[in-house]
Amino acid sequence: MRNLALTLRFDGSAFCGWQVQPNGPTVQSELERAILRVAGEDVRVTGCSRTDDGVHARAFCCNFSTASELPCERWPAALNYYLPEKIAVLDCREAPPEFHARYDCRAKTYRYHIHNARVRDPFLLGRALLEPLPLDADMLAREARDFLGAHDFTSFCAAGGSAKTMTRTVSRFDVIREGEEVFLYVRADGFLYNMVRIMAGTLLEIAKGRLEQGSVPGIIAARDRSRAGATAPAMGLTLWEAEYDEIF
Amino acid sequence: MRNLALTLRFDGSAFCGWQVQPNGPTVQSELERAILRVAGEDVRVTGCSRTDDGVHARAFCCNFSTASELPCERWPAALNYYLPEKIAVLDCREAPPEFHARYDCRAKTYRYHIHNARVRDPFLLGRALLEPLPLDADMLAREARDFLGAHDFTSFCAAGGSAKTMTRTVSRFDVIREGEEVFLYVRADGFLYNMVRIMAGTLLEIAKGRLEQGSVPGIIAARDRSRAGATAPAMGLTLWEAEYDEIF
Repeated sequence: MRNLALTLRFDGSAFCGWQVQPNGPTVQSELERAILRVAGEDVRVTGCSRTDDGVHARAFCCNFSTASELPCERWPAALNYYLPEKIAVLDCREAPPEFHARYDCRAKTYRYHIHNARVRDPFLLGRALLEPLPLDADMLAREARDFLGAHDFTSFCAAGGSAKTMTRTVSRFDVIREGEEVFLYVRADGFLYNMVRIMAGTLLEIAKGRLEQGSVPGIIAARDRSRAGATAPAMGLTLWEAEYDEIF
Repeated sequence: MRNLALTLRFDGSAFCGWQVQPNGPTVQSELERAILRVAGEDVRVTGCSRTDDGVHARAFCCNFSTASELPCERWPAALNYYLPEKIAVLDCREAPPEFHARYDCRAKTYRYHIHNARVRDPFLLGRALLEPLPLDADMLAREARDFLGAHDFTSFCAAGGSAKTMTRTVSRFDVIREGEEVFLYVRADGFLYNMVRIMAGTLLEIAKGRLEQGSVPGIIAARDRSRAGATAPAMGLTLWEAEYDEIF
């Protein structure tokens, strides 16, 4: 059997997240259906993360086993032919037999997209959170530094997570303004359930004065979800990059 | 009566163009319905151009007469409340009584958006033409220079236009690559029916070798639509800017 790794891009607004579930179409279910059409095999695909309903992906890594002999360079076009247009397979590579898209992922980066304007932009519908209050991106960048490092992020984990440990190491948290748009980039070795959306919601509450500047370290230390801000909407979130040790 | 000028942004994929027509919702019909809700008046709105089915707008200017005394700064939010999300009123200004969004428009700029890649991008669906053949943007920029100046653009006008004269002056034609995306920016004092889309289609045929490099001047001189390339799809086209002499 071959172990194939795919990179996907998808507009999450049309799907109930990554993982197969009964409520509606998911990216995994659409992909498994396309693989069945291409290879005639009913496979299970392993994703690098369980993205939520409405969350997008720029470069989502997943892998699956197949007996198909179709060369790697033929897979993207073959799968894209059967996939909905809101999902695209960008590339396909042969992975070592033991490669696992979730367990072997060394770091992931998410981007949270805020459209900071009074009037909605039709081209950002379903892709960014509209926030009319003028945001001070420099101030938020300073606040965001308090997320860096290894912490128990219990305060930034929604109920329903199944993590064994609540400690994660955040290695990047940038807040970047480009015109009316503000982007949060968060890189970590792993993420708890809704972690980036709660971090984004917390920074937004600091920006609005509902939480004080400098309050992030205390919220982290409290290990209490009720101390952090609300969970920001899924539509602003994109899985930006998944990193692996092995280059294959 | 007041003469109000609005700037709109819209994702044209949901509409049958600007102008009211029986086939389905248009931007004009949606806007006139919203004005009826806000001001209780059944007005006719004049647009700066008749954009086609599927064409987008970044900054579309239009105007209408109203007896309403609602201050300008209140109009955008009031109209946006009733408009579909794919249309947004960006601003509202008081215009001189004689101002006419179409007749007074001194120049318009359109952008044609090509996604030059082998695999579709779900985030560009309905917004860009996917062209897998690698395009030489520098070569196309040189070819595009032949469109500059005052010419009879009969060869670049679809049947069904109602223009009195076929001469238009093109003052800008830039071809700009940004990664996998290629943008054509065309500025002129006015445009014939489907003019930018036929120009884009002609450049694409030069890129593919179906038309020779250097053939644009001959195609213009022929005044024959059949000499130019195919009409590129509407989804790649955006009305980028409309310019007026009066600043109000």
